[in-house]
Amino acid sequence: MLHQLCPRVEKALELLSKRWTGLIIYQLLNGPHRFCEIESSLPISGRLLSERLKELEKEGIVNREVFPEVPVRVEYALTEKGAGLAPVMKELEEWANKFIN
Amino acid sequence: MLHQLCPRVEKALELLSKRWTGLIIYQLLNGPHRFCEIESSLPISGRLLSERLKELEKEGIVNREVFPEVPVRVEYALTEKGAGLAPVMKELEEWANKFIN
Repeated sequence: MLHQLCPRVEKALELLSKRWTGLIIYQLLNGPHRFCEIESSLPISGRLLSERLKELEKEGIVNREVFPEVPVRVEYALTEKGAGLAPVMKELEEWANKFIN
Repeated sequence: MLHQLCPRVEKALELLSKRWTGLIIYQLLNGPHRFCEIESSLPISGRLLSERLKELEKEGIVNREVFPEVPVRVEYALTEKGAGLAPVMKELEEWANKFIN
């Protein structure tokens, strides 16, 4: 079976296929963001965004950093694994610009 | 809003995010396949595979060719737009091999 031949590609596709995950990663490729910045840039509920970010943290794609300031500041940034998706997103962007009208 | 800034990337992600679509495209990058070949390579029902292939035809990513033989032969192949996803899949495969264990 194909998917047994490349379980990694299947897992990668599964990971990126969750609603909004791709765009959240695409956004974080521009650097660390605060929760409210991501939330305001996508038509996504705070609850769902929080869920997606937790999933991405669990997968080692996003890192959540808490800055001990008053008020406390929390930022989300891509890990090395997350930043490794830059070429995938770049190719996807090129394809989309060429073929999606 | 981010997704208004790159509606094309969002549409591309949406397209590829449907369950099994990515793997069907990944399979067809190896050349035309008959329905039964794709069906036997993925744990997907015939009904869902047929649905996914119709969607991909509608999006201009897959072409369905009927060969007037006896019995009739039907093959699915990537169009130019579909084949244009090869670099995306290649980068995804490289990322998956590097980061997914």
